[in-house]
Amino acid sequence: MARVPATAEQLALVRYDADGLVPAIVQDAATGEVLMLAWMNEETLRLTLAEGRTVFWSRSRGEIWRKGETSGDVQIVREARYDCDGDALLFRVDQRGAGACHTGERSCFHRSFG
Amino acid sequence: MARVPATAEQLALVRYDADGLVPAIVQDAATGEVLMLAWMNEETLRLTLAEGRTVFWSRSRGEIWRKGETSGDVQIVREARYDCDGDALLFRVDQRGAGACHTGERSCFHRSFG
Repeated sequence: MARVPATAEQLALVRYDADGLVPAIVQDAATGEVLMLAWMNEETLRLTLAEGRTVFWSRSRGEIWRKGETSGDVQIVREARYDCDGDALLFRVDQRGAGACHTGERSCFHRSFG
Repeated sequence: MARVPATAEQLALVRYDADGLVPAIVQDAATGEVLMLAWMNEETLRLTLAEGRTVFWSRSRGEIWRKGETSGDVQIVREARYDCDGDALLFRVDQRGAGACHTGERSCFHRSFG
């Protein structure tokens, strides 16, 4: 797992919502498939960049969520991006294990309208 | 522009936040590039599916935002997906014009940490 050496200037550009959270898109670096959307606070963004694997804030459980810690479906960060407004993040990852979704599907976005 | 024939059952699975909004990821259908993240409410999701082009809710302006209406950078919907929890959307689109970002870049995620 490779640490992402973000600068303080870059980190200061991230804008968190009223709950202190920012949405984080996770994309498979190899295939381009969008795997999931989850949430980070300032602490879990720092942990993600420091550990080189995705760490989220679980809104339902109200706690830090190291993705794949129990399932093994770890997401190794290959690229960490932030958008023009600084209020959304994009992580391009190597998805280990079966996939990103708790249903067993590779992507959480496995259902289509229509 | 192709209408997406979503069912009432599918629409009922979408979960909006306390402000009545759900995050919508927009991905280039041809290249897989993640172009932007914006927000929809129930009305703009219905408009998006009915018109076959992305329509968002502008949180800063507090109004409906038909993407590309003035710039021409319209996003034609090829696929509309919702995630396992129903609290995030993914649109695979044909991006017309120069790109998705108001900065002139093709993707809003043109900056990387590190």
